[in-house]
Amino acid sequence: MTNIHKTHLALLRAELKKQKLTGFFVPRADEFQGEYVPAYAERLRWLTNFRGSAGIAIVTLKKAAIFVDGRYVIQVRQQVDEKIFAPFHLMEEPPSSWISKNLRKGDRLGFDPWLVTAEQAKRLAEACAGVGASLVPVAANPIDAVWHDQPARPSAELATQPTQFAGVTAAEKLKDIRKGLGAVDAVVLTQPDSVSWLFNLRGFDVPHTPVVAAYAILPAKGKAQIFIAPEKLTEEVKAHLRPIATIHAPKDIGPALKALGKARARVQIDPAWTPERIRDLLVKARATVVTGTEPISLPKARKNRIEQEGARAAQKRDGVAVSRFLRWLETEAPKGGLTELDAAAKLKAFREATGELKDLSFETIPASGPHAAIPHYHATEESNRKLGTNEIFLVDSGAQYIDGTTDITRTVILGTPTAEMKDRFTRVLKGMIGLSMARFPKGTTGSQLDILARQNLWNAGLDFDHGTGHGVGAYLSVHEGPARINKSDRTPLEPGMILSNEPGFYKQGDYGIRIENLVMVHEAKTITGGDRPMLGFETLTLAPIDRRLIDVGLLSEAERHWLDAYHARVLKEVGDHLEGDELAWLKRACAPL
Amino acid sequence: MTNIHKTHLALLRAELKKQKLTGFFVPRADEFQGEYVPAYAERLRWLTNFRGSAGIAIVTLKKAAIFVDGRYVIQVRQQVDEKIFAPFHLMEEPPSSWISKNLRKGDRLGFDPWLVTAEQAKRLAEACAGVGASLVPVAANPIDAVWHDQPARPSAELATQPTQFAGVTAAEKLKDIRKGLGAVDAVVLTQPDSVSWLFNLRGFDVPHTPVVAAYAILPAKGKAQIFIAPEKLTEEVKAHLRPIATIHAPKDIGPALKALGKARARVQIDPAWTPERIRDLLVKARATVVTGTEPISLPKARKNRIEQEGARAAQKRDGVAVSRFLRWLETEAPKGGLTELDAAAKLKAFREATGELKDLSFETIPASGPHAAIPHYHATEESNRKLGTNEIFLVDSGAQYIDGTTDITRTVILGTPTAEMKDRFTRVLKGMIGLSMARFPKGTTGSQLDILARQNLWNAGLDFDHGTGHGVGAYLSVHEGPARINKSDRTPLEPGMILSNEPGFYKQGDYGIRIENLVMVHEAKTITGGDRPMLGFETLTLAPIDRRLIDVGLLSEAERHWLDAYHARVLKEVGDHLEGDELAWLKRACAPL
Repeated sequence: MTNIHKTHLALLRAELKKQKLTGFFVPRADEFQGEYVPAYAERLRWLTNFRGSAGIAIVTLKKAAIFVDGRYVIQVRQQVDEKIFAPFHLMEEPPSSWISKNLRKGDRLGFDPWLVTAEQAKRLAEACAGVGASLVPVAANPIDAVWHDQPARPSAELATQPTQFAGVTAAEKLKDIRKGLGAVDAVVLTQPDSVSWLFNLRGFDVPHTPVVAAYAILPAKGKAQIFIAPEKLTEEVKAHLRPIATIHAPKDIGPALKALGKARARVQIDPAWTPERIRDLLVKARATVVTGTEPISLPKARKNRIEQEGARAAQKRDGVAVSRFLRWLETEAPKGGLTELDAAAKLKAFREATGELKDLSFETIPASGPHAAIPHYHATEESNRKLGTNEIFLVDSGAQYIDGTTDITRTVILGTPTAEMKDRFTRVLKGMIGLSMARFPKGTTGSQLDILARQNLWNAGLDFDHGTGHGVGAYLSVHEGPARINKSDRTPLEPGMILSNEPGFYKQGDYGIRIENLVMVHEAKTITGGDRPMLGFETLTLAPIDRRLIDVGLLSEAERHWLDAYHARVLKEVGDHLEGDELAWLKRACAPL
Repeated sequence: MTNIHKTHLALLRAELKKQKLTGFFVPRADEFQGEYVPAYAERLRWLTNFRGSAGIAIVTLKKAAIFVDGRYVIQVRQQVDEKIFAPFHLMEEPPSSWISKNLRKGDRLGFDPWLVTAEQAKRLAEACAGVGASLVPVAANPIDAVWHDQPARPSAELATQPTQFAGVTAAEKLKDIRKGLGAVDAVVLTQPDSVSWLFNLRGFDVPHTPVVAAYAILPAKGKAQIFIAPEKLTEEVKAHLRPIATIHAPKDIGPALKALGKARARVQIDPAWTPERIRDLLVKARATVVTGTEPISLPKARKNRIEQEGARAAQKRDGVAVSRFLRWLETEAPKGGLTELDAAAKLKAFREATGELKDLSFETIPASGPHAAIPHYHATEESNRKLGTNEIFLVDSGAQYIDGTTDITRTVILGTPTAEMKDRFTRVLKGMIGLSMARFPKGTTGSQLDILARQNLWNAGLDFDHGTGHGVGAYLSVHEGPARINKSDRTPLEPGMILSNEPGFYKQGDYGIRIENLVMVHEAKTITGGDRPMLGFETLTLAPIDRRLIDVGLLSEAERHWLDAYHARVLKEVGDHLEGDELAWLKRACAPL
């Protein structure tokens, strides 16, 4: 927080008065509710200096508060002036609760209905109503009115995703989705990764996530409509879209929703993701709004045969790059002088050397020593740290290739580990292996399996405070719904879903451990005597796990057998692409325990 | 289904016409939504002959359907004439779906609003509205009008539960619950076990569950009101209640709710349990209805120190009876001629011999051979079966003692088991032990732990189709909410909760296995190096587990150690109360593996 942010706050308050508002709700979001937002939509950062990937500010004429989740409770105090923006834990004191305590009868809390989902708006409106205040949708965002050097909207040209990698044409996907629509006349799609998957398009407006910032309307009968900035459309993309959709400018979504209302259509939206503005336009147009789960989410998560093959190829390619990096690290780190950012740059160089890298799938987390205890550590020039001897180095990274998205974490010791480090590493590893070996009936959810990754830590009075796994897209977002492996997710796992398997352990100020492979749900081999089919996981990620950090005595025979078999597979599949010193290193790293 | 049920259906239809209804909804419920209903409320049975513990019929002037859950899909076809009542699986074709298909515009589906919860009524009303029909609450149940020999309402006298066993006086409980009420003016309590627990009362209207059929209103300020049939009140009970509550007849609940409305009170109900009639009376009286979870449910589940001690004493006492029974069975069964009902009677006799038995906590399930494959097997004179050699015998039973409620299942082999039986028994046992040994952080739910009881079956392509555990009351219902251990329960486990731990395996037409102990959640001992407190389970049930059915080679060292330690404890605690041949048998049964 600098003086400039005080000025920004003053500018916003002046604008609120002009718009006859007594407050304003500022989420870290653009119109698409994605994880990465383009520069023009970094309104929360402009206002508060907060740089995390999720957060909300509420500004009134007298007060200002900022709400962040558990990941950012430390960071928010470093980046934001607490004297101006009171920081709150999003779960412990959610905005609705703050509103109940700080708003008064007659207050008018503004919000931008393009940036807030229907579900959020409903909660906020209830909180406001509870104290006699009102929640007011603004026609134009007041921050945009006073942000003088606001960046322009990005306009990167789109690419089509060839059927060779997508596996299924957009026309076929549209047909399948239509079949499942049931009794509605149309569904509005507002999630970029859904639109990207459905139309076999990729976009490049934001780093790391090659999605198209576009809305679409899919009617039960007739052509789909896609709403997209015209400057992003190449002739190739237009030719690709024309047979399956009519192309419209983003501003035409309003008239299109009105037309649905005029036709008295039953229109499905997912209130958890759809901008409140779209729900409101439909209601005002007198369409019948049906709420339901976004219909693309599940088909997109269940990778088809071609996407599955692509994932295997991408993971092998990525495994070669990561293995080369791990060998380089083991060789170079003892010479001294290496920093976290050096390591991240080198890892990127190995990925670039594959000749296939489109982008990283997120900014590499190169965490040395105590930095490894911060699960979402962000290395900057200021935080950059030299890799030390007898310290742990944790690197969480991933790549975007045209045939698949990767995400892998390896934790290595630079020197000699302590007995405690080995104990903790082995417990984390046992969890990772336990989940890898799981067999489970159809209908099982990630929350039922989650304990497999944690129980060895729980038995030692320990745990890790993040989810065990998230879904991963196919050359799309590295964090993809709907299925997750954590303490509460209730989406049944289905064959073809790709998820991360990444238990960890974090000792504040000292060290951290995380081991992450991607796994894909598949139908498990039938067992003689079994009375029902079972599902299981195929491990996709291929790179050695540091044997020097394993306390072999803590492994069961089955766990030891799993790890030896995994390393034998890494040696075969990655080793095929290495030679000389690199292959010799891989042989040592993959030797049986 | 006999001719008499055809007559009953005709009588009901005639009455419906008289009441200008075109259909009627018949749940297996009384006004209290309990598991056991008194004879006068067995309307579903009167109408259809269905004798299961849960089910629903819908009768229209032309059609009739009956809906039962997975437990009863076979039984319903045996007891009900399918030509008249079309049977449906409650989950696959719920009543709301049947209504959508079978009701027409203008139809009037009657229901008794005392027997249907607010939540159910809402769902039914929505289903009716969807086809232009209406859901009509009846002022008097049309079955009662035509059921000429309907039994009278039970009128057993109540008993007070002494503080020596309840642990906390009713006055203190009322004070504590009031503190937690928040911003409401009153809460309406309609669950008999909640009213029984809160007021330290026990009732005897239905078998096995010593609860009081009464409603209560607990205002934030002032005396509680309890609504209860006057003939059930002894002078002692009246004296017990007078300092803490005003006593009213059941029919006075209407005026009491009206008075709340007149005072413009905010009144809390739990729509999942409260009769629709009560919600409707409150709304008509213009009270503000606040929906929330029943506030007694959690405090009741968290047994206090005295209840915990009582549970331990009751379990030890019950363990002596069960151990004596198991020894008797092992001695007598080989002589031949014993039947399932003989075994159940003998087990009851051993419990009676404790001198403390108040009731069984449910009807004993004495399942021999293929009957053991039916998880909810009900032994009758017709089904009664002789215990066979080399067959499995499964006995699931429990007792009500004034200091605690028990529930235990043991599975034994009468002769020599097959290798498959031993494999399956050992997998079930490993699951039971895995759950018994679990350690988990605060906030963990039964659905997160459930896999511990199943994973060894899943690994063999097997599973069991019932929950792993249910809550258990303190001299109350043997099935008590809110916490459960199953694939979906989301109630965090808390110290003092008593749950069953009862994995099983069922091979249709052949044999079944279930091993059930009760466990109590407690704070686990701190572990050096741990960074957060953990919870765990204390095993309460004490009776030997059949060693002859264990494939020792399948047990891990930790599992074997757990079982040996458990048997040593059984020998010590139960053995103290046995002598001679019985003690000698127990020593053999509890010998280390």
